[in-house]
Amino acid sequence: MEIIFLGTSSAVHSKERNHPSIAIKAFGETILFDCGEATQRQILHSSVSPMKISKIFITHYHGDHILGLPGLLQSMSLNGRESKLTIYGPKGLNKIKDAIYSLGYCVIEYPVEFIEIDSGIIVDNEEYFITAQRVKHNTLSLAYSIEEKKKPRFLREKAIELGVPVGPAFGRLHNGEEVEIDGKIIKPEQVLGEPRKGTKITYSGDTRPCEEMIMFARDSTLLIHESTFIQKDSINAEEYGHSTSVDAAYTARDSNSKELILTHISTRYGDEYADIMLKEAKKIFENTKLAYDLMEIEL
Amino acid sequence: MEIIFLGTSSAVHSKERNHPSIAIKAFGETILFDCGEATQRQILHSSVSPMKISKIFITHYHGDHILGLPGLLQSMSLNGRESKLTIYGPKGLNKIKDAIYSLGYCVIEYPVEFIEIDSGIIVDNEEYFITAQRVKHNTLSLAYSIEEKKKPRFLREKAIELGVPVGPAFGRLHNGEEVEIDGKIIKPEQVLGEPRKGTKITYSGDTRPCEEMIMFARDSTLLIHESTFIQKDSINAEEYGHSTSVDAAYTARDSNSKELILTHISTRYGDEYADIMLKEAKKIFENTKLAYDLMEIEL
Repeated sequence: MEIIFLGTSSAVHSKERNHPSIAIKAFGETILFDCGEATQRQILHSSVSPMKISKIFITHYHGDHILGLPGLLQSMSLNGRESKLTIYGPKGLNKIKDAIYSLGYCVIEYPVEFIEIDSGIIVDNEEYFITAQRVKHNTLSLAYSIEEKKKPRFLREKAIELGVPVGPAFGRLHNGEEVEIDGKIIKPEQVLGEPRKGTKITYSGDTRPCEEMIMFARDSTLLIHESTFIQKDSINAEEYGHSTSVDAAYTARDSNSKELILTHISTRYGDEYADIMLKEAKKIFENTKLAYDLMEIEL
Repeated sequence: MEIIFLGTSSAVHSKERNHPSIAIKAFGETILFDCGEATQRQILHSSVSPMKISKIFITHYHGDHILGLPGLLQSMSLNGRESKLTIYGPKGLNKIKDAIYSLGYCVIEYPVEFIEIDSGIIVDNEEYFITAQRVKHNTLSLAYSIEEKKKPRFLREKAIELGVPVGPAFGRLHNGEEVEIDGKIIKPEQVLGEPRKGTKITYSGDTRPCEEMIMFARDSTLLIHESTFIQKDSINAEEYGHSTSVDAAYTARDSNSKELILTHISTRYGDEYADIMLKEAKKIFENTKLAYDLMEIEL
């Protein structure tokens, strides 16, 4: 999976940090999480192809997380997109849809489906599932996780022992199908190892630190967590329904996540404060990085 | 007057050219014409202070000219703006207003007035007037001009000859007031020279070449004209309701404008085409420039 941080500011952007958006390239798709204003411009400077975006997940409807949607949708149409796009978000998405379509002459000539969702499994296909979880912001806000479905190891020697001929039957068994060999049924569980956990990426959206977020992020390969404030401004974090870098680090530690990337950084902090932010998180959770715009990482 | 080209692309932006917006700093105000997506981000990279923007004029409601409005309005509020902002645009502006206010949680805590306008004088104050004119696009679209009110020269020698004492009476007469000197009334027209034409900037918005545009741009100090296509693509210009660089140059020549700046450039053209665009306009109207993003000029 490739993760591209298209925008890493909070509500107030700066020259260096655009409004929030994260793209994940995986399973032959590109999936976008949030879409702040100028996300399509950030995309131009990244390795993301807007035409390959298949799904967009919105955490909540504060302007900094959604104002890039109208332009992105219209530009895809101008560029001749034909394939369907699905947009997911908490209750209120249909109102957003109406506003997008009434904001001037809006021509979108490919199918776009808007789906209002709540906590639970949202997408479940052969390769991955995406789950949503209500978190604690000053408005209804969802966190999301995307988790790879990893096949158990195929026990080749065991299969040969059971008389399965080397060839297509191996693949069918690995894919969970039974096969018949000389009148004998071989079941997949006879030749498959223990279940294996796939890569899991969790994105907090905007939230206060909370038990729901810790449970939801459990065993993440990567936790991308908002970190609007440094610890000395924790009173602001509380007032506006956000987290500090220390809050994010505790969530990473307590959820047994492997890696933490801090994003949604208040632009009130210059470079020296960014250092403070990273240092104070690292004291609690060593494997922490601070996101910057157009940062691309591979898992 | 200072003119800042915040965005110079047409509907499809590029790394180099953002969606249309032009700021004019004059008379202690900053006035914005059009506001494509990411205009607020372009502003960050320019000399424009968003808090000083007093008026925004929208030419028409295609997305590339308006999608920066919601974010700009909200950011000004986040930054504590208190002063009033007035937004002008053709019929349909109230629908845009409703869409802006329903696009998520939109908090705008300073007064914003939306005024639907048509051809005619829109602003007329002591220092300047702004005029709108319907032009020929594939939707209702306005061109705008801003014109300085320049006082006639004050004929100092003539005033002294008439017995006006050097001092505040000079200023009052120059400002159009009568003064009484030793029981004798001196009228301003006795001490003022011929009417003088002030600086006039005309912005075409999106339009086909047309008589209305030529008349409206008459005697402009600077004509900022859309130039979406080069002449060999004039068929596209016709199809989409736009102008070529040659159309813009003829309008500059026929309106007796002093200078022409081409903007709203299709991003299908790379640098070499930009050269062609400029060259073919210059053949018809020598004093032509091609706008680029963040270009600032002073008149």
